[in-house]
Amino acid sequence: MKDLKSLIRAVPNFPKEGIKFFDITTLLKDGDGFRQACDQMWEPFANAGVQKIAGIESRGFIFGAAMAYTQNLPFVLFRKPGKLPAETESESYALEYGEDQIEMHVDAVSPGERILIVDDLLATGGTAAAACNLIEKLGGEVAGISMLVELTFLPGRQKLEGRNLNFLFEFASESMDSDD
Amino acid sequence: MKDLKSLIRAVPNFPKEGIKFFDITTLLKDGDGFRQACDQMWEPFANAGVQKIAGIESRGFIFGAAMAYTQNLPFVLFRKPGKLPAETESESYALEYGEDQIEMHVDAVSPGERILIVDDLLATGGTAAAACNLIEKLGGEVAGISMLVELTFLPGRQKLEGRNLNFLFEFASESMDSDD
Repeated sequence: MKDLKSLIRAVPNFPKEGIKFFDITTLLKDGDGFRQACDQMWEPFANAGVQKIAGIESRGFIFGAAMAYTQNLPFVLFRKPGKLPAETESESYALEYGEDQIEMHVDAVSPGERILIVDDLLATGGTAAAACNLIEKLGGEVAGISMLVELTFLPGRQKLEGRNLNFLFEFASESMDSDD
Repeated sequence: MKDLKSLIRAVPNFPKEGIKFFDITTLLKDGDGFRQACDQMWEPFANAGVQKIAGIESRGFIFGAAMAYTQNLPFVLFRKPGKLPAETESESYALEYGEDQIEMHVDAVSPGERILIVDDLLATGGTAAAACNLIEKLGGEVAGISMLVELTFLPGRQKLEGRNLNFLFEFASESMDSDD
């Protein structure tokens, strides 16, 4: 078993001064690490009656698609506005300044279907909470949310109360020299 | 075996009036179809000495990541400008009006490494040609390019002369009522 956390690269001052960016591309570049991450992201939901996997654009596509392949499950997409060509439903969420939206095709989810939401990293939780609401708007059920990383110095988890959550590891501090 | 081409949905007038958009989300929603697509996209390169798979943002991530998982290969990313946090190299390509760029981390490719480039659909070929150039700029070798669909009514293939190409099927016409 690999120490997946050690495969993440912290990049200072990206996307802006003072922010530490947790870069997963160094994990993706490790074939065994990537496989292990996908397997562990699926494991807790093996008996959760998951009928579809939904990936959040765009790093959620990477883990979600591999999980859909291994489980032989349908894969559906949460995308940024204007990217999906057919009829969509959308959900807004707050940003630090202003708001953004995610969209899903209305035919991506059937009533009562149990959906596992996949992304790479939980930060403020706005996108993940919107993804849950969007599944429910379309009549589906959220079987759970599975991500590689939780940034526990941000309040993302508060927005996901009552959801089945799976994170493989966390970063507890954004300071560049911490022991997280 | 599924008829993968029949799983693609043609959406008229997207992203603008008069354009037919070939929507792959209907294929992704078919678990067996998605698996078969990934397997067939890999198959011709099974003995090509591929050392890494590179996906083009963002639909290329879906097929590329699943292929990387099944082959236990590293997965690296071509992204739109400003998305990758560490040191990048970039390559420009022409659009109908103006130009765009793709980027890759400089440490994504090591000298001499054989890379398989993966995306969903070949249209004008600008992105795919830029992806090849970028791999070579970084010292890598292009083992091939594998995509689900080729739009043969566009001249994409001309930009990829001498490359090892694999497309699972083609659409020969953009007219909405054609027999493609």
